[in-house]
Amino acid sequence: MTIQTDLGAVLDQLYATLLSRKSADPDSSYAASLYAKGLDVILKKLGEEATETVIAAKNQDPSKLVYELADLWFHCFVLMAERGLTPQQVADELARRHGRSGLDEKASRPKG
Amino acid sequence: MTIQTDLGAVLDQLYATLLSRKSADPDSSYAASLYAKGLDVILKKLGEEATETVIAAKNQDPSKLVYELADLWFHCFVLMAERGLTPQQVADELARRHGRSGLDEKASRPKG
Amino acid sequence: MTIQTDLGAVLDQLYATLLSRKSADPDSSYAASLYAKGLDVILKKLGEEATETVIAAKNQDPSKLVYELADLWFHCFVLMAERGLTPQQVADELARRHGRSGLDEKASRPKG
Amino acid sequence: MTIQTDLGAVLDQLYATLLSRKSADPDSSYAASLYAKGLDVILKKLGEEATETVIAAKNQDPSKLVYELADLWFHCFVLMAERGLTPQQVADELARRHGRSGLDEKASRPKG
Repeated sequence: MTIQTDLGAVLDQLYATLLSRKSADPDSSYAASLYAKGLDVILKKLGEEATETVIAAKNQDPSKLVYELADLWFHCFVLMAERGLTPQQVADELARRHGRSGLDEKASRPKG
Repeated sequence: MTIQTDLGAVLDQLYATLLSRKSADPDSSYAASLYAKGLDVILKKLGEEATETVIAAKNQDPSKLVYELADLWFHCFVLMAERGLTPQQVADELARRHGRSGLDEKASRPKG
Repeated sequence: MTIQTDLGAVLDQLYATLLSRKSADPDSSYAASLYAKGLDVILKKLGEEATETVIAAKNQDPSKLVYELADLWFHCFVLMAERGLTPQQVADELARRHGRSGLDEKASRPKG
Repeated sequence: MTIQTDLGAVLDQLYATLLSRKSADPDSSYAASLYAKGLDVILKKLGEEATETVIAAKNQDPSKLVYELADLWFHCFVLMAERGLTPQQVADELARRHGRSGLDEKASRPKG
């Protein structure tokens, strides 16, 4: 398993898990509790994790920075699941902007 | 090409591109200009994009939200490249937290 | 002139100035340009200044921190003027929470 | 009592209270607990309140926006007290930038 496959696999699995929790009991998981609390609480958490990422970076603490970036991405994924968006849409937007050499399969696909 | 592979491929390629720009002329690209300006400017942009993500979500504008999440992830990747961290480290942290069914290859790997 | 009077005077004058710019030509001042751009741009700036305040505090740079706090308060005041709120309403809320010894004049005033 | 005096009085009293809590038992008040937890927790709270201010503004909820601005200012004041800065320094910076008509007493004072 290459690093390339792995990264995508972890993120896709996380997203699938988060989607499945949209219909779960709010007490059954942290993500389920966030959906029950609604968009504003999810956005508040996203802002909080962004600030914690800034603080960890300033503290020159690499493992804490990895931890906070994971928190930030996690809440981005919760937000996407809550809004009905997919990580793939974000990846498409990044590919559109930053070129897609090695992504020739997508080259002829129309963009919205 | 499945969605799974694609997402990882886009993100890994973005990261590789951003790494290559660390040694580039500051005028040659936006990322190169951010590295030249240094950590604080990168963090300022990350905070800015987090706020814009919140605003886009509140505006109920899905395509703008995708756009702002792409901006936020882009600046996360610039931050990681600048700090010498990899997206893989963040993915490992997410896998460690959120289970890794389907990721059995990693199950026996020690974590730092 | 005591420090107490001074602080209130500066803030009240700033607010009065910002209010007067709501009807001014967008090109005539920075505040007027913000009103013309609308709420989202004002909120984006507020989030930006909050991040810069965090960064200045972490840099242990007192004069930069004062500078960024001034930026943050300025954009709070622009937001209040844009929304039709007054600094006095925020001061009332703070007084309500944190006691008002020495503010006996307000002690019997009903709160919303 | 005019509004002008009142605003300054509330803010000055809040700051004096917050200063006095720097030497208090961490369990005796919320501010004392924040000082005990240290700068990073104070900054995290400041970022959190900025995000909540953005959300309240987008919700078109004036009384919630006043509430969140009060939270944001409160944590700005805690930060200033923790760092040994005064609201007066921020007011001086604002006066320096935005003119001081009506503040003639300060017109000849040198600025740092």
